[in-house]
Amino acid sequence: MKKNIIVFGGDGFCGWPTSLGLSKAGYDVTIVDNLVRRKIDVELGADSLTPIIPIRDRLEAWKEIISKEIRFEYIDVAEHYHRILSLLKEIRPMAVIHFAEQRAAPYSMKSSYHKRYTVNNNLNATHNILCAIVESGLDIHMIHLGTTGVYGYGTAGMDIPEGYLRVKVDADDGEKVLEIMYPPSPGSIYHTTKTQDALFFFYYNKNDELRITDLHQGIVWGTNTPETLMDERLINRFDYDGDYGTVLNRFLMQAAVGHPLTVHGTGGQTRAFIHIKDTVNCIKLAIENPPQKGDRVKIFNQTTECHNINDLAEKISALTGAEIRYYSNPRNEAPENDLRFCKDSFLELGLKPVTLNDGLMTEVVDIAQKYLDRCDISKIICTSTWRSNIPVDFEGSPVPITPVSPFYVNQSGLNKKVSL
Amino acid sequence: MKKNIIVFGGDGFCGWPTSLGLSKAGYDVTIVDNLVRRKIDVELGADSLTPIIPIRDRLEAWKEIISKEIRFEYIDVAEHYHRILSLLKEIRPMAVIHFAEQRAAPYSMKSSYHKRYTVNNNLNATHNILCAIVESGLDIHMIHLGTTGVYGYGTAGMDIPEGYLRVKVDADDGEKVLEIMYPPSPGSIYHTTKTQDALFFFYYNKNDELRITDLHQGIVWGTNTPETLMDERLINRFDYDGDYGTVLNRFLMQAAVGHPLTVHGTGGQTRAFIHIKDTVNCIKLAIENPPQKGDRVKIFNQTTECHNINDLAEKISALTGAEIRYYSNPRNEAPENDLRFCKDSFLELGLKPVTLNDGLMTEVVDIAQKYLDRCDISKIICTSTWRSNIPVDFEGSPVPITPVSPFYVNQSGLNKKVSL
Repeated sequence: MKKNIIVFGGDGFCGWPTSLGLSKAGYDVTIVDNLVRRKIDVELGADSLTPIIPIRDRLEAWKEIISKEIRFEYIDVAEHYHRILSLLKEIRPMAVIHFAEQRAAPYSMKSSYHKRYTVNNNLNATHNILCAIVESGLDIHMIHLGTTGVYGYGTAGMDIPEGYLRVKVDADDGEKVLEIMYPPSPGSIYHTTKTQDALFFFYYNKNDELRITDLHQGIVWGTNTPETLMDERLINRFDYDGDYGTVLNRFLMQAAVGHPLTVHGTGGQTRAFIHIKDTVNCIKLAIENPPQKGDRVKIFNQTTECHNINDLAEKISALTGAEIRYYSNPRNEAPENDLRFCKDSFLELGLKPVTLNDGLMTEVVDIAQKYLDRCDISKIICTSTWRSNIPVDFEGSPVPITPVSPFYVNQSGLNKKVSL
Repeated sequence: MKKNIIVFGGDGFCGWPTSLGLSKAGYDVTIVDNLVRRKIDVELGADSLTPIIPIRDRLEAWKEIISKEIRFEYIDVAEHYHRILSLLKEIRPMAVIHFAEQRAAPYSMKSSYHKRYTVNNNLNATHNILCAIVESGLDIHMIHLGTTGVYGYGTAGMDIPEGYLRVKVDADDGEKVLEIMYPPSPGSIYHTTKTQDALFFFYYNKNDELRITDLHQGIVWGTNTPETLMDERLINRFDYDGDYGTVLNRFLMQAAVGHPLTVHGTGGQTRAFIHIKDTVNCIKLAIENPPQKGDRVKIFNQTTECHNINDLAEKISALTGAEIRYYSNPRNEAPENDLRFCKDSFLELGLKPVTLNDGLMTEVVDIAQKYLDRCDISKIICTSTWRSNIPVDFEGSPVPITPVSPFYVNQSGLNKKVSL
């Protein structure tokens, strides 16, 4: 029996290694992508640090290396509904993996255009896939990449459960126990769309009994997986810019190029992390362990560890000798937070987590150093701000700031470019 | 001081009487509408029972009658972001009222096109307004028309509170009390978009301190308000078709034209109701009692009474002699439910509710009879179904069904046309 999978957004940072991992594991993979992430590189003038080659060339290389074909369809999931519907009917996939969303919180907050693009793209993309599954009449398992950010960054004094929260309410005839979706608390427009996705899942699961798995993923770090390491032409993208670079990768890259580590605010924020290899492993496990017809939406916390940003910065500083610098926080968030997750489901299914260790961190530093000549230092600082009145001058900053010339933030509302 | 108000969707069933009511009360009203509700009349081939005249003619009549101007802007709120932004900057309204959403659950479930239209229109419309308010930099109070349907049709053994629910959770150091948004449980794609709107409100209120009031409105019945009664050219629209007709108005209209009352399923469903006059009164109260900067989203249950569908049908049957007929329920919902709401907030602000009484019901029957020649009986039956496998033949129906020729439902998946 053919094990067909469609990966929506299969050319991106998570989608690409996932597509290769699934192809290697014996699935017949079709990538659907409008290549918008590469187009945003053009918009921002910030390329992947690693030299990623065009998608069709990547796939040629893959075919050459393991004699296995991955099909590619250039489709805008948010726009071209009927092409998705036709593809589902033709391929009859056992599962679809949905990465086809704008995934950077800072990008989603850059301007009204970016807010509106993120809303329009993410919500229509998710809805189109669900709607097409129903219209196809096929029993397709939908796997969605969500974020731990939907929970907000507070624990309410408990390990955050996997999607559902047991609560007690006062009813007429005494206290009553309910299990509800964990109350969402998004921290950006990007995160808001993910909490709204959850309502699409809830509804299509309830009304049409769609089988849906929602993966609440932590911040992904690392670059390569066994498959992307097979040939340089298969290398994964690596974002180091202020919009798309995720915090741990940015720190490692900053250390590699001799830039101070850019901590936003106090550094007291705690975040959830996962290595890119585990992203791929978790998705394999999700495919192999689908919900049954009639089950509610299956929610996993797809994260392996939580770290405080200051601790991370200090760890990397100790490892590499990099200086730590504090910048005004562009985000509108609590200066400090506690964060703990239940993450039993994937462990019970056999996940052996890759955790933060010096060896793996060194690997990222090595990659960054290897492609150093491709780095545009001026793209390192985050210039998106959550509110127009968020102070980007030092007076407004909540923490003592190291004097920073030539790394500094000016009064005009935008960080100035930085040169080494 | 000028009291400027923008009414988005001001040409519709609720928007039109609201615009007139506010204009009469001394506000300077601008209506923004793309007239899509009239275009959907064209699509469905089902006109308003009452003869509504073009918006510009309506406004001419209003000016002639009370010497007061209402401005009209033909703008698609979901599409034309920059025209909204310009308008906000020009008018500097104290409040905007947001009716500009596709508002019929059955229409939202007709096909994948209708699901996708509803999602794309409603979410982009709501987001564009919020985004434009932030970009304008103005302190504008946003009032949104939501629905009691966001709560789902179950009470969990309590009066449904006004938006926020007090719950107890088990934390490390014992039981902890939290106040959360009432867990949503949408019953259609239309309702899903309203629960997603609530997350936009939550986020823009949290991040940008927007002042937002969300009105969770019951099913609106009645037709006229003191203002729409001033002249026949000001008459409000009246929908009696299976998609847009709301249940109580449909029953009254069916009674008027001699059609049996069309009960879907057992009739054991309980729903929340409000008269159109109270819609207008509640919105006036919401404008006069805005949240303060820094307040959370203010949520009102905008409904005055709950009724069981069977009780309503029997009441109207007793009043008019109309026969009651049971049809397979096109919706995917519990056959029976209990429903009770907290509705203290508007009462405390002085609302004197118009409740269901024979006099008012007779008024609706009179209107229906007056415009009887405009009725297309074939549009009365609901042909939208929530799932492709929902039985529309009688075998699958959960209730004993009166033999119904010439009112009957066939086996083909669509109800046949009905003729008297």
